Amino acid sequence: MKARVCVLENFGQPLVEKKLSIPPLQPGQMLVKIEAAGICGSDVHIWQGEDPRAKLPMILGHEGVGRVADVSGAKLTVDGQRVEIGDLIFWNRGISCGSCYYCTVAKEPALCPYRTVQGINVSLMEPPYLNGCYADYIILPAGVDVFKVPPGIDPAVLVAASCSGATAAHGFDLIRPGIGDTVVVLGPGPLGLFSVALARDYGASQIILIGGSAGRLKVGQEFGATIVLNRREVSLEKRCEIILDVTRGRGADVVVEAAGTAEALKEAITLARPGGTVLSIGSSQPAGTFEFDGYRDLVRRNLRLQGVWVSDTRHVFQAMHLILKYPHLFARLITHRFPLEKANEALKSMRQREAIKAVLLPGQDLSG
Amino acid sequence: MKARVCVLENFGQPLVEKKLSIPPLQPGQMLVKIEAAGICGSDVHIWQGEDPRAKLPMILGHEGVGRVADVSGAKLTVDGQRVEIGDLIFWNRGISCGSCYYCTVAKEPALCPYRTVQGINVSLMEPPYLNGCYADYIILPAGVDVFKVPPGIDPAVLVAASCSGATAAHGFDLIRPGIGDTVVVLGPGPLGLFSVALARDYGASQIILIGGSAGRLKVGQEFGATIVLNRREVSLEKRCEIILDVTRGRGADVVVEAAGTAEALKEAITLARPGGTVLSIGSSQPAGTFEFDGYRDLVRRNLRLQGVWVSDTRHVFQAMHLILKYPHLFARLITHRFPLEKANEALKSMRQREAIKAVLLPGQDLSG
Amino acid sequence: MKARVCVLENFGQPLVEKKLSIPPLQPGQMLVKIEAAGICGSDVHIWQGEDPRAKLPMILGHEGVGRVADVSGAKLTVDGQRVEIGDLIFWNRGISCGSCYYCTVAKEPALCPYRTVQGINVSLMEPPYLNGCYADYIILPAGVDVFKVPPGIDPAVLVAASCSGATAAHGFDLIRPGIGDTVVVLGPGPLGLFSVALARDYGASQIILIGGSAGRLKVGQEFGATIVLNRREVSLEKRCEIILDVTRGRGADVVVEAAGTAEALKEAITLARPGGTVLSIGSSQPAGTFEFDGYRDLVRRNLRLQGVWVSDTRHVFQAMHLILKYPHLFARLITHRFPLEKANEALKSMRQREAIKAVLLPGQDLSG
Amino acid sequence: MKARVCVLENFGQPLVEKKLSIPPLQPGQMLVKIEAAGICGSDVHIWQGEDPRAKLPMILGHEGVGRVADVSGAKLTVDGQRVEIGDLIFWNRGISCGSCYYCTVAKEPALCPYRTVQGINVSLMEPPYLNGCYADYIILPAGVDVFKVPPGIDPAVLVAASCSGATAAHGFDLIRPGIGDTVVVLGPGPLGLFSVALARDYGASQIILIGGSAGRLKVGQEFGATIVLNRREVSLEKRCEIILDVTRGRGADVVVEAAGTAEALKEAITLARPGGTVLSIGSSQPAGTFEFDGYRDLVRRNLRLQGVWVSDTRHVFQAMHLILKYPHLFARLITHRFPLEKANEALKSMRQREAIKAVLLPGQDLSG
Repeated sequence: MKARVCVLENFGQPLVEKKLSIPPLQPGQMLVKIEAAGICGSDVHIWQGEDPRAKLPMILGHEGVGRVADVSGAKLTVDGQRVEIGDLIFWNRGISCGSCYYCTVAKEPALCPYRTVQGINVSLMEPPYLNGCYADYIILPAGVDVFKVPPGIDPAVLVAASCSGATAAHGFDLIRPGIGDTVVVLGPGPLGLFSVALARDYGASQIILIGGSAGRLKVGQEFGATIVLNRREVSLEKRCEIILDVTRGRGADVVVEAAGTAEALKEAITLARPGGTVLSIGSSQPAGTFEFDGYRDLVRRNLRLQGVWVSDTRHVFQAMHLILKYPHLFARLITHRFPLEKANEALKSMRQREAIKAVLLPGQDLSG
Repeated sequence: MKARVCVLENFGQPLVEKKLSIPPLQPGQMLVKIEAAGICGSDVHIWQGEDPRAKLPMILGHEGVGRVADVSGAKLTVDGQRVEIGDLIFWNRGISCGSCYYCTVAKEPALCPYRTVQGINVSLMEPPYLNGCYADYIILPAGVDVFKVPPGIDPAVLVAASCSGATAAHGFDLIRPGIGDTVVVLGPGPLGLFSVALARDYGASQIILIGGSAGRLKVGQEFGATIVLNRREVSLEKRCEIILDVTRGRGADVVVEAAGTAEALKEAITLARPGGTVLSIGSSQPAGTFEFDGYRDLVRRNLRLQGVWVSDTRHVFQAMHLILKYPHLFARLITHRFPLEKANEALKSMRQREAIKAVLLPGQDLSG
Repeated sequence: MKARVCVLENFGQPLVEKKLSIPPLQPGQMLVKIEAAGICGSDVHIWQGEDPRAKLPMILGHEGVGRVADVSGAKLTVDGQRVEIGDLIFWNRGISCGSCYYCTVAKEPALCPYRTVQGINVSLMEPPYLNGCYADYIILPAGVDVFKVPPGIDPAVLVAASCSGATAAHGFDLIRPGIGDTVVVLGPGPLGLFSVALARDYGASQIILIGGSAGRLKVGQEFGATIVLNRREVSLEKRCEIILDVTRGRGADVVVEAAGTAEALKEAITLARPGGTVLSIGSSQPAGTFEFDGYRDLVRRNLRLQGVWVSDTRHVFQAMHLILKYPHLFARLITHRFPLEKANEALKSMRQREAIKAVLLPGQDLSG
Repeated sequence: MKARVCVLENFGQPLVEKKLSIPPLQPGQMLVKIEAAGICGSDVHIWQGEDPRAKLPMILGHEGVGRVADVSGAKLTVDGQRVEIGDLIFWNRGISCGSCYYCTVAKEPALCPYRTVQGINVSLMEPPYLNGCYADYIILPAGVDVFKVPPGIDPAVLVAASCSGATAAHGFDLIRPGIGDTVVVLGPGPLGLFSVALARDYGASQIILIGGSAGRLKVGQEFGATIVLNRREVSLEKRCEIILDVTRGRGADVVVEAAGTAEALKEAITLARPGGTVLSIGSSQPAGTFEFDGYRDLVRRNLRLQGVWVSDTRHVFQAMHLILKYPHLFARLITHRFPLEKANEALKSMRQREAIKAVLLPGQDLSG
């Protein structure tokens, strides 16, 4: 049997479709037939050579849902159920070592220095070789944490839970907004829309979403934003004024930077109230600098600035449950669907920000 | 009866000693005979006109311990004991409103917008007029939170608990280091030395104190610093190397910026491990800016930057208990003692960093 | 001007309607015309002489919404707005001392030993005399924390926020369930229904409500319960089985005892997973005992049992925001409305559990 | 090569010394020459057949420090250092699965249902066979988390960190006492003495140790207890009075039950202040019941009762650092040392409470 995979051989060049032999499974590994593979914003950065973690040649794709085609040995899900051939599953993309300081003492496996992610920092030349979701088959390594997908959920809608959803969940897990809080979210992409949904589910009373795309802001309202501000129409000064107005002059309890720019982070700091929190989750690569005044931006206002890097299985669990609670809502994120052979088109739809989220459906005939 | 007070009439000019009538007490107020008044680093900034909160003419001094000379009505301490004439007491310098969002919902009365502090933002012209500790008498307002001083403790040693000690305790209360942590402290002044003592009492295993004064670093060792680094002798690069070395390449779990400079804050961010915390408590006025890279300095390393502004009664309680636990240690902070009439000399000893902490003793005859 | 008040003169006897002179306001006090007064379950206990805090003669009623008829001096709301005559307001029923250990160090003013509550532990003979909400006028004391009621909300729906809503919010604030959790609630009265709403707003995925009234369980489903179990139809053994089944054999992450019986608390302990939390908020008076096995019920399962006593302004704020977010939902709680003169009937409707929540509307003509 | 092991073949009967062949190492395993093996109180319970986890025949001993004799493959410590032959090491006795709900989502691997502990629930018949520390050699399984022992520390003093020390650290990690707190500890055995040391290192101001042995109470004072109460001399009523007296009538902020009896847990609940915490860590097997009144013992006083079960690598790390900080103090725990052939005597010294802590030293010649 052969697997069809889309290989990134040269940065900036189109992915190349190949047929590769499927190697025999090692103990604990699973062969999974991909049903849906998410196109993540960071895939675009990897493709363009902007992510130092990438190792060529590689198969892109770190967000997947698929059906178990084979499993070597007894494998249990996080929920303690035995994984059987034919099960539709979902998994944490990151594999941490389980025994270092970060995995055991700090309990932050996302920060494990040995963490690997298929589709990001594992090349095609390293076992188990089929190391990415832009493919019809992937081999998951022995240490992967797995969930069974409950019946009735569209795999395409679930994929985002393993990356942007989990990263946002990680951030909220660290800062824990409370009932009655006012939360501002900067950036209406997948990270920002997950943040809006999380803010609502953490009990926020007011959720203000700020962005530059009217279409996405509209989706944000469906996700629970009580106010949306288009930064192309409402000036920074005016945005500050509005936030102060709806918070009785205090500023926001929590501001989430989900835009990935230095300007957004700077604005986030401005909008927070004394004693408030700024959560920065937007950058997966360098995004510029700004002038920071420790007195004004940190000490005098007793602020907390919390950066967040990727996620672990706990956060994937949280993001998955959020999607399962509001499946129709999250379906609104999936604006574009492509067959595997159109992976290059899919990447372009993300690069040009036409899609909020594009998904590859390797198993389906989308021709009709 | 008259009170002797030292009045700041013009910024940058010597304080002027005056005799003022003691007004009758309003309900809930107390007349207190000052036994010891701390000279805080921020007094120097107020004196020099660098603190926008100051309102002239004013009596300096927000750190005091004294004996109750009179009390209007039934007043209870925080511990529920009735305050009697003759009691030696200690108090939280800040009076918050008790009913605003910060006082009630956020439970951070330190951030109350109506907070007043005698000796900082209340002039001589406002009731109860005797509004500062550089005096032999002060009138404490009705809302003040009071503790009785247990027998056997030197009042001069206790004064710092109400300001730098409480601010440091506030910071540690927000971030809560844990058993086995490595804590770095930048700046060996009162804030930094309290931070060293707090780090030890929060269970830190390694405490690295960085500063520019060999004498203060030596005191830091007595406070519990396991390593001291003189930044005049050990380069920044070497300091980083040492921190990485003693943390197995990770960086410090917690870095406390207690120096009040932009350079120190920048260094603090560099020294923290992924997932670590930077606590910034050093600046009570603007201290410059630096280039901040949100990806490198926050997101990629999953850092928490926590600013801290002043303190409330909880933190005064904590700082007081810390001093009562280690009185001989904290006695090392009090390097200079002056009679009230030498208040200007006392201020100079702090400005020139001769003193770690100078204290006025209005009630004592220090001539002999 | 006279105030109409319903006075409890003898336990177990009907309340007696009286007309009392309205005394002049002291500084900081407000005269408020009651628009809605909630009948709390604990009012029934006070009425029947089961609450040791009660002091006769007294005016019942600690849950109120009303319009400011007069105010002595400048009074600010928690949100910093000036209170004006004619404002519709809402307040925290409890007045804490603001300066004891619980108010300042522990930051739990609900536990202040000097806490007073009009309608519960302040008699008619103590200033400001008009000390209860079963009346057309109440005088609020100087230390009360106040919120303005936003336009468009039915006062009757808001009253519960100041008591059962705030107590439930207090409990959830202490334990903080997380995204994806399974929460079980025992008892479908106001405390239990608030708990269901809070569990949903804290991100719970599954919410199981257990109770004995089919009607209340149906309301619970509207509040967000994903499963309801009628304990008259489903045995304890079967309930355990169902909870284990929906949690993959683990048990519930959080179990809220909101029924006020020893049996419910015992069941709550049984249903929690290892490492889980049992929150007990149901009893405002003694409710019996049971055999407790520290090994089985606490240590071996690494459980947390958290008791909760009343609430403070933070929790009133949270409960108020919850109601303002879902006003139509909380309107379902208010099953019975009575004019002031039918206060005795209103109490009976609560005692006989006909009403989920009954409300007095002193200002309205309900005759038509 | 043969290993000398002490085998428990029948409950209640003396351990039998045997010589067993050392099997070849599987990937990731280590052969370790035991230098010190702690005799834990729970070993006595296993020996007497009171612990349902035991599987005969088995080698007792779950607390060990030893020297690496062989290692299969590249093994890293928690601190990221490569383990080499000849290294003196220390390890977490529990091996959790790493992929279940408790290991990944709850981040409480101590609660993993698949957790195994050599010397407790792994028999001599299961690989890697040499499954206990009452031996001169043990084979550690592949998943074990390892620390290198720094030079200069007596292995006998370190052993307790992996069991009682880690369990106590786990408890304190969950409840986090604060600076200035009053902590009461019931039971002056190893769990209680670790609790005293932890209380001090979490910043407690007053630490009251209650027990029945004058000798152990004296050791408790060296560990940091500020007051010790002999329950054979001071009645329960008097103990309550003293706690109330030193806490200004409030009760203790934290009470640690480290005695393993129902009476102690009941007393702990009585001694806690409103809003306080009772931490129960004393029972590793059933210890009786008592009458629990949810209103009085939980709700009315807003108490938190926290049970704690065993520990994970984080807590072993904390306990290890505590011992490394105060090695001379913890040396006081090790009252008895035996050669391997006197394992039965060692067990008896623990059963009869002659020893606070007894240790086997298989590698040393103690004859002289």
